Amino acid sequence: MAVNLPPLPELHPVAGIRLGTTRAQVRKHNRRDLVVIECAPGTLAAAVFTKNRFCAAPVTVARAHLAQAAPRALVINTGFANAGTGAEGLDDTRRSCAALATAMGCAAHEVLPFSTGVIGERLPVERIIAGLPGCLGALSERGWEEAAHGIMTTDTLPKGSSRRVSIDGKTVTVTGIAKGAGMICPNMATLLAFVATDAAVPRAILQQALSAAADESFNRISVDGDTSTNDACVLLATGKSGVEIRAAQGATHEAFYDAVRGVLAELAQAIVRDAEGATKFISIDVVQGASQADCLEVAYTIAHSPLVKTAFFASDPNWGRILAAVGRARIPQLHVDRVAIHLDDVCIVRNGARAPEYREAQGQAVMARDEIRVRVDLGNGTASARLWTCDLSQDYVRINAEYRS
Amino acid sequence: MAVNLPPLPELHPVAGIRLGTTRAQVRKHNRRDLVVIECAPGTLAAAVFTKNRFCAAPVTVARAHLAQAAPRALVINTGFANAGTGAEGLDDTRRSCAALATAMGCAAHEVLPFSTGVIGERLPVERIIAGLPGCLGALSERGWEEAAHGIMTTDTLPKGSSRRVSIDGKTVTVTGIAKGAGMICPNMATLLAFVATDAAVPRAILQQALSAAADESFNRISVDGDTSTNDACVLLATGKSGVEIRAAQGATHEAFYDAVRGVLAELAQAIVRDAEGATKFISIDVVQGASQADCLEVAYTIAHSPLVKTAFFASDPNWGRILAAVGRARIPQLHVDRVAIHLDDVCIVRNGARAPEYREAQGQAVMARDEIRVRVDLGNGTASARLWTCDLSQDYVRINAEYRS
Repeated sequence: MAVNLPPLPELHPVAGIRLGTTRAQVRKHNRRDLVVIECAPGTLAAAVFTKNRFCAAPVTVARAHLAQAAPRALVINTGFANAGTGAEGLDDTRRSCAALATAMGCAAHEVLPFSTGVIGERLPVERIIAGLPGCLGALSERGWEEAAHGIMTTDTLPKGSSRRVSIDGKTVTVTGIAKGAGMICPNMATLLAFVATDAAVPRAILQQALSAAADESFNRISVDGDTSTNDACVLLATGKSGVEIRAAQGATHEAFYDAVRGVLAELAQAIVRDAEGATKFISIDVVQGASQADCLEVAYTIAHSPLVKTAFFASDPNWGRILAAVGRARIPQLHVDRVAIHLDDVCIVRNGARAPEYREAQGQAVMARDEIRVRVDLGNGTASARLWTCDLSQDYVRINAEYRS
Repeated sequence: MAVNLPPLPELHPVAGIRLGTTRAQVRKHNRRDLVVIECAPGTLAAAVFTKNRFCAAPVTVARAHLAQAAPRALVINTGFANAGTGAEGLDDTRRSCAALATAMGCAAHEVLPFSTGVIGERLPVERIIAGLPGCLGALSERGWEEAAHGIMTTDTLPKGSSRRVSIDGKTVTVTGIAKGAGMICPNMATLLAFVATDAAVPRAILQQALSAAADESFNRISVDGDTSTNDACVLLATGKSGVEIRAAQGATHEAFYDAVRGVLAELAQAIVRDAEGATKFISIDVVQGASQADCLEVAYTIAHSPLVKTAFFASDPNWGRILAAVGRARIPQLHVDRVAIHLDDVCIVRNGARAPEYREAQGQAVMARDEIRVRVDLGNGTASARLWTCDLSQDYVRINAEYRS
């Protein structure tokens, strides 16, 4: 079902990171649903979390733990999101962390918890604790692929990305996995992405790199406009490659950042390609805006319009729906008569009205494709923004109407 | 398919208003698709139009004509919206107005044009002009019901509302018709509503009454968040009842305003009940907010969430999705631990978390109903807002994927 999502590429091990996955029966039977990621001593971590004010208990706890110490382990469950669960939810999360800490011989605040699944129901802590030995027994530097499967929910395919770059004559690896599918409109991160590198990176630079890369990747995708309560993206740096990133600029940093950004962009796009019910992968470029905020507002208004999304699903060049979305976007100023809209290379709207040379057959030819680029020229400045989204199909409705049943 | 939408009630004639409908083959064959509403001399008009910046040519022309003179006639076509059509679209609209003006012996700027349908294609002016004699021949004070059919597009049922109130010992009538179905998130009015009264109302008071009533009705509904390019609501006052509304307050004005507001609210709710693919009618109350703007933002975020809407469609008390929508609403401040959520009378969330006494069976019982009220208490002030929306079904996607084919 996923739109041109290639099979999982080779996920290069990252020295200092081991992953173990098990079937803990968290919510469904016989499904990989619990993952532990072990970090070698000295590993530093950066993270970005959802901006949803109803953030889940694990988000609250992970944020607090991260402020106290560098992590020795991450514990991730699917099935239940542990959001909307109040004080009991926080207790449940802390108990899972404590159990893993005991088993590993570290402090509870050196464990970062992550959950994804149904909102509002209690976490089955006993089943999670019972599953931990299975994860620990499976720990391996080659455990990325299993873990990519272990964090899936309504995803149809696992998502991973891996790059090796040469820095200072040595090889630096950046490897990451992610899960997505629905409730996808990340605001600072997306629902569970874990990326690690063997570069040595001071925490401030690591956080800066992650925030910037997330802003250009996870914060630029939307499936349904629904920002999750559990979004989290973690970037771990073990330092085992012996390569040190000392400054936030320069050629060394650039090579490192390019690898991080590349991995995040690939993971973010994979989430859109495998979005619930998606049949098309849509890139939206808004250019010549007065500000990036304006460009993003226009792009998201298009990306979230049910009418635009159903037109893509139908392969119908009903571009008036794009025009109407631009017209209702909440930006301070729109010069209607300067607006141009392209579908791939076909100009559909010029000077705010149907382009005279446009023929329906051209639009149909573009809309028949499964990857389509929409470009909106606002003619009002030099700012621009790009984001990625998908269509809205009957399957999206079916999947989300059936999700809990 | 419509949710508890009763058959068209008796639509009382309004002295001074005659309506004529015909089949002009505007876009489809053998369908009532062209309506003329004739206003007696002395009729005053107020109107509210879409805030979409890509407003349609008829909106631009109607606004300009209304600024010049009181209308003698309205001409309304379905099939094509005449939006995104540039200068040619304006010419097309003006030609329709001129043709009707010639036939009726009035000035072109005494005709107000309205269109609804596909965006971006030229209006078939010749077919519209050819259809005008049919409309004029059918003009009748009893033409409301025919006209209610004549303005339908993907509506499954005609929509009308009519009230008679006694003011100063005389009877005042307020009668209106509307059409809706999709691209419904009106911002100042909804896609074509025509309301008339035989009260005599100065234009300033008429406009004030219409704007206030539209704000409490059409501006409080949403089907898909897509604000149309063509929204327009007109309130005509013929004065034929002999009842004069002289001031914007007092008992007389109140009786008049209540009737106008009642008709508009009924029309607005009818549009939601007959929304594309709707199977449920949902009222959303957000109370105890810091401002009405905050309450509306929260209410619209819930109303536009595809995940909330599909949960309603599935009759699934997946209230975590409502919680997540509240959490991502763009309001300055949210006290998560004060938030309460009710589905009808069932308290689901209290103090920001699942209510301890809540049982799934209670939620299921509410969600099985076809009319459901969501109440969100923000615990942060005294403002409130109410709006009406519907669920998101596979039929919505099907209808909008097939709309042009």
